[in-house]
Amino acid sequence: MSLLVEFEPAGVVVLAHEGASLLDAAGEAGVHIDAPCGGQGRCGRCRVRIDEPVDDGVLRTRSNARLTPDEQARGFLLSCQSYVEGGDGRGGERRLKVVVPRPYKKRLRQLAHGDAQPEILRSYGEWKKSPPIRMETIEIEPPSLEDNTSDTDRMARELARQCRIPAVRVPLEVARGLGATLRAADWKVAVTLETAECDGATRLSPRVVSVAPAQPAHGIYGLAVDVGTTSVVAYLVQLRSGKVVDSASAYNAQIACGDDVISRIVYSQRGHGLARLQQMVVGTINELVEELVERSAIESGDIHEVTIAGNTVMTHLLFGLDPKYLREEPYIPTITRTPSVVAGDLGLKADPLARVSVAPAVGSYVGGDVVSGVLSSGMHASDRLTLFMDVGTNGEIVLGNSEWLICCACSAGPAFEGAGVTCGMRATAGAIEDIWVDGSTFEPTFRTVDDAPPQGLCGSGMIDLLAELFVTGALLKGGRFARDLRTPRVRETERGLEYVVAWGPETDVGHDIVLTEADVDALLRAKAAMYAGVAVLCRSVGVEVAAVEQFLIGGAFGQFINVEKSIQIGLLPDLPVERFRFLGNTSALGAYITLLSVDARRLQGDIAARMTYLELSADNSFMEEYTSALFLPHTDIETFPSVRDLLGDAILGVAVDPPNGRDPGSTSAPSAPPSAPRGMAGHPGNVLAR
Amino acid sequence: MSLLVEFEPAGVVVLAHEGASLLDAAGEAGVHIDAPCGGQGRCGRCRVRIDEPVDDGVLRTRSNARLTPDEQARGFLLSCQSYVEGGDGRGGERRLKVVVPRPYKKRLRQLAHGDAQPEILRSYGEWKKSPPIRMETIEIEPPSLEDNTSDTDRMARELARQCRIPAVRVPLEVARGLGATLRAADWKVAVTLETAECDGATRLSPRVVSVAPAQPAHGIYGLAVDVGTTSVVAYLVQLRSGKVVDSASAYNAQIACGDDVISRIVYSQRGHGLARLQQMVVGTINELVEELVERSAIESGDIHEVTIAGNTVMTHLLFGLDPKYLREEPYIPTITRTPSVVAGDLGLKADPLARVSVAPAVGSYVGGDVVSGVLSSGMHASDRLTLFMDVGTNGEIVLGNSEWLICCACSAGPAFEGAGVTCGMRATAGAIEDIWVDGSTFEPTFRTVDDAPPQGLCGSGMIDLLAELFVTGALLKGGRFARDLRTPRVRETERGLEYVVAWGPETDVGHDIVLTEADVDALLRAKAAMYAGVAVLCRSVGVEVAAVEQFLIGGAFGQFINVEKSIQIGLLPDLPVERFRFLGNTSALGAYITLLSVDARRLQGDIAARMTYLELSADNSFMEEYTSALFLPHTDIETFPSVRDLLGDAILGVAVDPPNGRDPGSTSAPSAPPSAPRGMAGHPGNVLAR
Repeated sequence: MSLLVEFEPAGVVVLAHEGASLLDAAGEAGVHIDAPCGGQGRCGRCRVRIDEPVDDGVLRTRSNARLTPDEQARGFLLSCQSYVEGGDGRGGERRLKVVVPRPYKKRLRQLAHGDAQPEILRSYGEWKKSPPIRMETIEIEPPSLEDNTSDTDRMARELARQCRIPAVRVPLEVARGLGATLRAADWKVAVTLETAECDGATRLSPRVVSVAPAQPAHGIYGLAVDVGTTSVVAYLVQLRSGKVVDSASAYNAQIACGDDVISRIVYSQRGHGLARLQQMVVGTINELVEELVERSAIESGDIHEVTIAGNTVMTHLLFGLDPKYLREEPYIPTITRTPSVVAGDLGLKADPLARVSVAPAVGSYVGGDVVSGVLSSGMHASDRLTLFMDVGTNGEIVLGNSEWLICCACSAGPAFEGAGVTCGMRATAGAIEDIWVDGSTFEPTFRTVDDAPPQGLCGSGMIDLLAELFVTGALLKGGRFARDLRTPRVRETERGLEYVVAWGPETDVGHDIVLTEADVDALLRAKAAMYAGVAVLCRSVGVEVAAVEQFLIGGAFGQFINVEKSIQIGLLPDLPVERFRFLGNTSALGAYITLLSVDARRLQGDIAARMTYLELSADNSFMEEYTSALFLPHTDIETFPSVRDLLGDAILGVAVDPPNGRDPGSTSAPSAPPSAPRGMAGHPGNVLAR
Repeated sequence: MSLLVEFEPAGVVVLAHEGASLLDAAGEAGVHIDAPCGGQGRCGRCRVRIDEPVDDGVLRTRSNARLTPDEQARGFLLSCQSYVEGGDGRGGERRLKVVVPRPYKKRLRQLAHGDAQPEILRSYGEWKKSPPIRMETIEIEPPSLEDNTSDTDRMARELARQCRIPAVRVPLEVARGLGATLRAADWKVAVTLETAECDGATRLSPRVVSVAPAQPAHGIYGLAVDVGTTSVVAYLVQLRSGKVVDSASAYNAQIACGDDVISRIVYSQRGHGLARLQQMVVGTINELVEELVERSAIESGDIHEVTIAGNTVMTHLLFGLDPKYLREEPYIPTITRTPSVVAGDLGLKADPLARVSVAPAVGSYVGGDVVSGVLSSGMHASDRLTLFMDVGTNGEIVLGNSEWLICCACSAGPAFEGAGVTCGMRATAGAIEDIWVDGSTFEPTFRTVDDAPPQGLCGSGMIDLLAELFVTGALLKGGRFARDLRTPRVRETERGLEYVVAWGPETDVGHDIVLTEADVDALLRAKAAMYAGVAVLCRSVGVEVAAVEQFLIGGAFGQFINVEKSIQIGLLPDLPVERFRFLGNTSALGAYITLLSVDARRLQGDIAARMTYLELSADNSFMEEYTSALFLPHTDIETFPSVRDLLGDAILGVAVDPPNGRDPGSTSAPSAPPSAPRGMAGHPGNVLAR
């Protein structure tokens, strides 16, 4: 028996059949509910609220493990774990009202807009010399019985005469409207066409993308998109000036099918899973386009060129390519350079003939987002030994200079994005992002995103907290809390010791916001993987980590981390602070640059080809470096001299954790490799996600 | 004394008595022999062959007027003119083996299959050197952690190593299945790919069309299609051998929307009209494909290459291009060379990635079917002055040789296809296709398609009837019936005089089948347009019509017309009969040749570019030639000396029509230009149809 489910505040009603979960029903109704674990009841993000009493036999809830008793009392339940039941047989119309908590959006937008713009404007000058697309306004002699050349040839003839373009290719879609357009325009038209080089085939005639009646202030627009596992960022660009007219961002709708790329790959293997994921990411991009064109008062059809950067899994999903083999050893992508396609092929909202150029990948674990980042960082042209780190769930690292480039992907894991951490969350409103801990009272002071009442800890907050607790002596080198602290903030529970960042009443979630020793373990694994990646990469080319002359940090998350505190916990190596530079969303920036420039596309291809991939799982020293880095800041404090100096002898003296602590001299891994629980056992170097 | 006659290949034996003709004997034996003239020895269709020497006194042959000396030497004789003789009196068993040539039955199908095949096989040798597509079977090294090149690059690498193909383009659709295919095939695959040149862009890497598990007997197939206004013909071709595996034909489903191209254009201007016409022609092609693949036990997906020839309107409709401007002065096509598309773009049943190459057009009125015809005729390479005529509703004419080509389209109009003629019809079952008229009684003898009860007159029947009536003196030079004939066959009605070909009771339609003076007018306009086209074209380059060294006739209809009779009515010029050659479906033949050969495609493009188009409506002499040709056979009988000789002085003496007849000396057009009623007033040279 079915159930009429009404989702609030959307006000959408859908008929859900027996056995369907509320998450399924929401999907059917087109109502977005965050479900990063893909509906396994593990992440607790798909919570919904039911405000009215529910009759027996209407809904069966399998598990609410991720909800507190208080939340359950307030009517929250996990939508993925709540199934429509057959009913009590009494019949009659059955109806259920489900409240979906509001998703958070605001912050992402600010990130995209505010930070990238200056970089973009800086880059533009270099690249505007080789536009991929141009618009020519021509006046064509009308045909006559004496000069009855076909419409296409007539247009081509004028392009040759007036614009010195010897030949063009006119696609069927352009030809279809050509006769009417030429006549309606009284033979004065604006022809948008690709430059000859942009297809990578220099001898191919330029392709005509659009023909429209000539208008005084015709603009040609392009769209640069960064397709992240978590969020999608899009820039609307006026191609002639290079100006970013506007930008927008949103969560990748695929989040409903899993938080990280592995869950997405798993989801893609279900019936229609791949098609659904493809539609979702296209849907997300299209929503951004709609938002952008509405605000800019242009038509989506005015977007005649699109560039996209994303990791290899995102790219495969966007193109409807089965990502299955990316996850199976030996982890082979179907493509690293995507085929020549136009917006219409993918269903993107733009001129259907707009070419979609995608940043080439190095391999399964170093994707186009990283290559795009390298391009925008400029490290490929630098004389200085440069390390570029794309900080995210995955953490790709590139080392090199103008002569060589080597890269790896280390499984940072999603801990810093909030997954697997008791009170972890993404950096949305209410996330604690900066924390200071008093050295004597261990009382914290914090700041939240949007200054909203606290809800949990985001990545930068976790780094801060780890560093503060470590530096104040509350947290010992091995990741255990000191036992002799006179503060109610550190308390013992069934799960072990934990630190209370915020007491229930001051929060928006109604319970204490804590950091447990298990959370610390998870974070140590993540930071150790990143540090080990840096160390192994440097060692592989025979340079000291200290020799790195500039350390560039890309990625949205990277913009908010505190360098000193990251060094204190051993996430970043102990280099002088001035060597670090935050580049913001380097992937989007690369997409922007390649939107403007054919030269940049060629260069990007060269960069991808030049990047040597180091497979960490095949490197013996990785496991050793990793285990050594599972401490605060490192087994060998001499590797972090600034931290050593900061801590002083006194604190170092108590750095050996009592008695359930670890022996810092041991190099055996105290916990599973970081990626093991994420489904890639045997390949710790390669949980990929952003 | 009787004779045992064995008819082959039926294997039927009959005892024929003295005095019986072989035709009679066959009738007795139930063996069908075509004898449209009813056994008068005039049609030549009842020919049979005797392969063994015949004793004296066995057979007496009265006349073999319709057989060439060569045919006679090869044993052919007319069965109606060959009678069993009494013998030499020596007795003994007398036996005669008679071979009956295969009759034509499924007319459309056989046309396609039977006639083109020998030409096709003759052509193949020249063209097989530059195939547009090839299949390579490669074995690929499986990937490993050490060699983790992407699937596409891995395949490309082997194609480079094993097949010396330096680079390939892998379209999205191929990439989508690639990972699974390579693994399912255990890394042994057959790669079908275009040769580099076939896109017309020599520097572009070859495009991969399909990747499939390698199988021992993998075939690659192609489809050559002639899209006519009336019928569509398709050949299924084994590309490696060039063999035509099978062929099929059907009426173009668009017929439901109009008989000729003008009605199609009109229909296309209705709401969804264009889309509907596009679907209809695609539907017709797809039905042929279904028929072909079913009979050949292959999959439509095995068709990896498609070539199409059609007139400009057909091509526009197939591609969904608005044909509106083809009909409005100055008659401009949107395209003459179609854009690069694949089968999936058009909805054709084939490998969706199969390239669809379309024969280029010269202009609105000389389409790809004519260019394809010129290519297959070989006239572009001939030293002899050649005239190629594609006989159909339109009648395109090409004059030239290896050095120059000039062409025009004359508005034959659809009269010979049955339109606008009281009892006109297409050459389907029941159409009267051969007619003889007795010179004294004016009684007709006729033969119908499939020997079905008569329903009407098809084109070849109309030519025959005009010629017979003219030669017998029933029809006067100006197209009026003689008034003093003592026969019920010519009678007066409200519409004027008419000739009764068949009386109602003998027909399948229940009414008399007639030819009215208005019908004669329509036919005179059609034949005059064609003749005038020939005359003007010759004059335009300063040659006499008589100087034409070979007169090639293409088109399905062209195959069935009788040259002598066509000359007698002035449809064809009065050249020695041996200069005429029927080439069959030259458009389909050209499609076949270009299916096999990239060189042929290039050549076809060159031919189209070389063909100078003469616009008849802009030529002053056309109207004059046209009016002069509105007579039987022509105003100036000296232009047709063989007809003059045939008629003799007597008949010529009464050639001036009484009193409602025309003055042969006048050159003013007695009736509207041929195309005017079809919607193209002001442009008589250009009613285009096939």
